[in-house]
Amino acid sequence: MRLVLATGNPHKVQEIEAILSILPLREPVEILPVRPEGEESHPTFLENALEKAREGFRKTGFPTLAEDTGLVVDILDGAPGLFSARFSGTGRSESNIQKLLSLLPGTSWDLRRAHFVCYAVYVDGERELWARGVVHGYLLSEPRGTQGFGYDPIFLYAPLGRTFAEIPLAWKNRWSHRRRAIEHLFQQLGWLHEGRDLP
Amino acid sequence: MRLVLATGNPHKVQEIEAILSILPLREPVEILPVRPEGEESHPTFLENALEKAREGFRKTGFPTLAEDTGLVVDILDGAPGLFSARFSGTGRSESNIQKLLSLLPGTSWDLRRAHFVCYAVYVDGERELWARGVVHGYLLSEPRGTQGFGYDPIFLYAPLGRTFAEIPLAWKNRWSHRRRAIEHLFQQLGWLHEGRDLP
Repeated sequence: MRLVLATGNPHKVQEIEAILSILPLREPVEILPVRPEGEESHPTFLENALEKAREGFRKTGFPTLAEDTGLVVDILDGAPGLFSARFSGTGRSESNIQKLLSLLPGTSWDLRRAHFVCYAVYVDGERELWARGVVHGYLLSEPRGTQGFGYDPIFLYAPLGRTFAEIPLAWKNRWSHRRRAIEHLFQQLGWLHEGRDLP
Repeated sequence: MRLVLATGNPHKVQEIEAILSILPLREPVEILPVRPEGEESHPTFLENALEKAREGFRKTGFPTLAEDTGLVVDILDGAPGLFSARFSGTGRSESNIQKLLSLLPGTSWDLRRAHFVCYAVYVDGERELWARGVVHGYLLSEPRGTQGFGYDPIFLYAPLGRTFAEIPLAWKNRWSHRRRAIEHLFQQLGWLHEGRDLP
């Protein structure tokens, strides 16, 4: 089946295509990326994703998937959060990372807890479904690794002792917020073979 | 001394005047409320407060205090957070509360943990100082009490078993995020008699 993906971020297209390739889909899903025009100005990730999905369906008439994602840092009261992609005002990941690191009040692990969260939304004109995916980690003081995107180079996934930028995409997708959200959403849609639990 | 308070919220003026009345100030502080024009469009509470304080000082030439405050709900990845005052788009506390309650995914206390956070900033043309104050609690399913403002009617302060809207302002100020932030800021300024620790 054909599924519009409402995003203007090529990293997300690549990652979601890789996620689809590992999910136990009942039938093949072909992704059609469409860039949304909205501003992501809502006060929740869910509302931002919902607006993108609705706009994608309205424009194309095809079932549409959209997601909104952020890095939530406990000691910063949720920042960068909804502003993750534009935290430093430049849109450049390096600047966003530098600004975030400059705000962290100390080096103890307790102060550096963070989680990535992804809200995935599906809209097809009849149904509006959503799911949330989360992965917990810690923020390093310096970037490590060259893979992934966004805050991946400072996001330490503790069970591996590596950042999300130090592991191949196929590994990241085993644990990532984005895969968890999309897998959960597809489960609700009945698109997955059963007998396989979320980790 | 004279201290400009950069806020357009009369509840905050009242609360901060009550806070000043219980702090062990070395000399009296007279509050001059000035409404800021900024949009609170920054990605952190601290930057929002800083902009208001700088604007207040620029306009008046007097040392200026500003703060930015929000309710941070863990299970909602920090929402309403920076958007606390305009969460429902109406600016009405009742609507904000109803929207927040509608988003909570369950009734167990684990899902209803939240904290109020206040960032207080002082700007006088030479120094820019800031402090953070936090108070932890749980969100009730229905509002209780008529005092306070904002999300106070659903914010249960566990040690008292009451919401911030069920206790007099003088009590609220003993534990509130806002008092903690302002007290800590004034300690940095050397405005308080010593020998009194933050609780």
